[in-house]
Amino acid sequence: MTPEEFRAHGYAVIDWIADYQARVASFPVLSQVKPGEIRAGLPDAAPEAGEPFERLLADLDEKILPGITHWQSPHFYAYFPANASGPAILGDLLSSGLGVQGMLWATSPACTELETLVMDWLVELLGLPAAFLSTNAGGGVIQDTASSAVLSAMLAGREQATGFATNERGCDGKLTVYTSRHAHSSIEKAAKIAGIGRAQVRLIEVDGTFAMRPDVLEAQIAEDRAAGFTPCFVAASVGTTSSTAIDPVPAIGAICRREGIWFHVDAAMAGTAALCPEFRWIHVGLELADSYCFNPHKWMLTNFDCSAFFVRDRSALIDTFSILPEYLRNQASATGQVIDYRDWHIQLGRRFRALKLWFVLRYYGTEGLRAYVRGHVDAARAFAGWVEADDAFELAAPAPLNLVCFRLKGGDTLNQRLLEALNASGKIYLTHTRLDRKYTLRLCVGQTHTTIDHVETAWRLIRETAGGL
Amino acid sequence: MTPEEFRAHGYAVIDWIADYQARVASFPVLSQVKPGEIRAGLPDAAPEAGEPFERLLADLDEKILPGITHWQSPHFYAYFPANASGPAILGDLLSSGLGVQGMLWATSPACTELETLVMDWLVELLGLPAAFLSTNAGGGVIQDTASSAVLSAMLAGREQATGFATNERGCDGKLTVYTSRHAHSSIEKAAKIAGIGRAQVRLIEVDGTFAMRPDVLEAQIAEDRAAGFTPCFVAASVGTTSSTAIDPVPAIGAICRREGIWFHVDAAMAGTAALCPEFRWIHVGLELADSYCFNPHKWMLTNFDCSAFFVRDRSALIDTFSILPEYLRNQASATGQVIDYRDWHIQLGRRFRALKLWFVLRYYGTEGLRAYVRGHVDAARAFAGWVEADDAFELAAPAPLNLVCFRLKGGDTLNQRLLEALNASGKIYLTHTRLDRKYTLRLCVGQTHTTIDHVETAWRLIRETAGGL
Repeated sequence: MTPEEFRAHGYAVIDWIADYQARVASFPVLSQVKPGEIRAGLPDAAPEAGEPFERLLADLDEKILPGITHWQSPHFYAYFPANASGPAILGDLLSSGLGVQGMLWATSPACTELETLVMDWLVELLGLPAAFLSTNAGGGVIQDTASSAVLSAMLAGREQATGFATNERGCDGKLTVYTSRHAHSSIEKAAKIAGIGRAQVRLIEVDGTFAMRPDVLEAQIAEDRAAGFTPCFVAASVGTTSSTAIDPVPAIGAICRREGIWFHVDAAMAGTAALCPEFRWIHVGLELADSYCFNPHKWMLTNFDCSAFFVRDRSALIDTFSILPEYLRNQASATGQVIDYRDWHIQLGRRFRALKLWFVLRYYGTEGLRAYVRGHVDAARAFAGWVEADDAFELAAPAPLNLVCFRLKGGDTLNQRLLEALNASGKIYLTHTRLDRKYTLRLCVGQTHTTIDHVETAWRLIRETAGGL
Repeated sequence: MTPEEFRAHGYAVIDWIADYQARVASFPVLSQVKPGEIRAGLPDAAPEAGEPFERLLADLDEKILPGITHWQSPHFYAYFPANASGPAILGDLLSSGLGVQGMLWATSPACTELETLVMDWLVELLGLPAAFLSTNAGGGVIQDTASSAVLSAMLAGREQATGFATNERGCDGKLTVYTSRHAHSSIEKAAKIAGIGRAQVRLIEVDGTFAMRPDVLEAQIAEDRAAGFTPCFVAASVGTTSSTAIDPVPAIGAICRREGIWFHVDAAMAGTAALCPEFRWIHVGLELADSYCFNPHKWMLTNFDCSAFFVRDRSALIDTFSILPEYLRNQASATGQVIDYRDWHIQLGRRFRALKLWFVLRYYGTEGLRAYVRGHVDAARAFAGWVEADDAFELAAPAPLNLVCFRLKGGDTLNQRLLEALNASGKIYLTHTRLDRKYTLRLCVGQTHTTIDHVETAWRLIRETAGGL
């Protein structure tokens, strides 16, 4: 494809996306296809001869679009959002066009230095501890997902607890890690990957707000030490997936400091709220954390993937991951004056993800981003108010930010039927969880273009649908 | 950014990339900036108010471009390529525009089903074992990098060897893994991450072609078993990073079958060659492998990230990774009729990477892709011939595909000076390795637009530069 062909086809793709953005609210949010239906519409083998680009775009409309669940629809309230925006998409496009590998500083200095800069910007923007700045002993790196970030943090904690002997000799089956019973499944997954083992993951009991109980954590650590285990990692959630419960970071952090245990704080979705000074309370105590992560690709208008991971001591992370084969040696790395981000995560290769984040932060400015966050929180709070005011419904958990957990009074089956009816309508998409063992609907307001009007429409639909059950 | 604003800015970005493609050959390949120079040109803090999009694009030219090492220049011969193409970039752009999460089938059925389909296409296109087809017991998944793929494979091997007890109780310090002394550093990194430990990585000696010696492997396994270790994973390289050495897969595979050890084959760069029937010999014996990986993002015109990972028994992989919290439960998954790719890798979230691969396979067709591979191999072979014919130079290793390892006769210092002079010229970019302990230059032909004419120019420059030392 020549540059001129690229230009012509590129315009067509830009048109396709602009048109998609304009019509996305009109599609059924949750794809209504049956298993196997999309594949059945496509040929079994790749073509021997090339096909015209126009045919690919036509197939996208005809063959692929029916199988899309529209995460960018303003009617999307499921899971946590994975929102996006024009400047992010275009920054990401430029990253694809440049096609650089940022594994080492030398393999594209701008890829590394812009990333370090925007990570430092985020520290200021969210009011994070200054220890996370690259100009201090810490630093930030863009990871793909919070799952990878928590794994990286756990590995650093594992090595710190064992004097870097585990990297050398392997795990011994006696390391323990701690998180709440409501924490994300990625923590258990990381413990399996890291060779620590699921049986050594202590799921600490929660209080009435679904937040971790520090007293139980402390007792469990003491019990484990007495039994000969080596506690190496604690993860607190600032905004659990089920209900945006916020663990008591100051109390947990104090325990970790006293015990010398690596303390990670996962604010994957909720962290973005800290753009607004009035929501910074979610990060109280964060100065006690060894590492922290939030995902601009969830709620900060930056398309997937972009998970912002920070550490207060970058040497602990680098010492955990670093390996230097001959074919990666270079003068710049040898000077020690540069960051080689390959030593900050699992992967070696990495794309220029800082570009899209830089574009978002500059195009919207901090003011612009705050307006989105406030709009979403206001809409969620309004929704929570409507739920509370309606006798047929109840709130299932506190709604501190943009997620509302609620139920129709009347039991699990009824609520399950309500969810299925809503999602089958194609008009909105919600998902569920269990709180206090009860089936609970979740409505998370976070798609870029979702406004209080959309949420009001959703509430009307939920009431009507419930009424018809 | 409204759809109409997106359209206008999108055209500008497409223009920028088309222009970049047209002029990329004219830039210094290796960025000539000093550490800190790019960051010093940028503001220390994010802007409070938003900025016009035009200013972002202008800054890309002025502030970022000097810090770019041009991986998409036809004069790029360093490392392994990370090539790209118009249809890949535009497919990836559509993925950003759709902004879906493919963690579960239900979260976008087309994202999963298209991925399964194109992975099956690749099995046919490369002549891979039918066991890797999703229609049999195996299947393919797109991972981000070969580092993540080898980690996934190692974890599956670890669990298979211990009856899935390691996931539960953690590693015991007695698992061993095997690869050649010339294998990629990602294998050692994976062993550290997986809690197996670097001391339990057996780096098997190589023969005169830098390929693993199966007799040494077999003896080492026997020795380890006798010493109470549990061998759980062997990785063979089809095309090592240093010299594209090809391990004897049939012999290694036979040992692994006999010993019941998970056998992974890493063909990250070289695998693409198998598009051409005349290069399929690189995969002889692959039917003995439990898993296999090659990176379309290296040599198959598909921009980063896109690593194609295959297993012959998908249940072993899924059983290794699967965790099912309430908030991810859904009807489609419960039926068991669908693939949920989150259980095939480290991460939970995943983007729609199959789109770009689908676009590449269809736009070029198999014939078109083969022509690229053949052009690169022919150019590399011509280069190897020129090196051999020149008394001042010598080949340092066999050059079976598109990588040529060579030296100026005269010692390490001279070759290091030659490399530095070439890279400082900005006209080409090469990297080095060590073979038989000797400093060796590597020239890998793989950028999409590199032709034999470029390689001839490179050879002239190398001779002239060497002559001037």
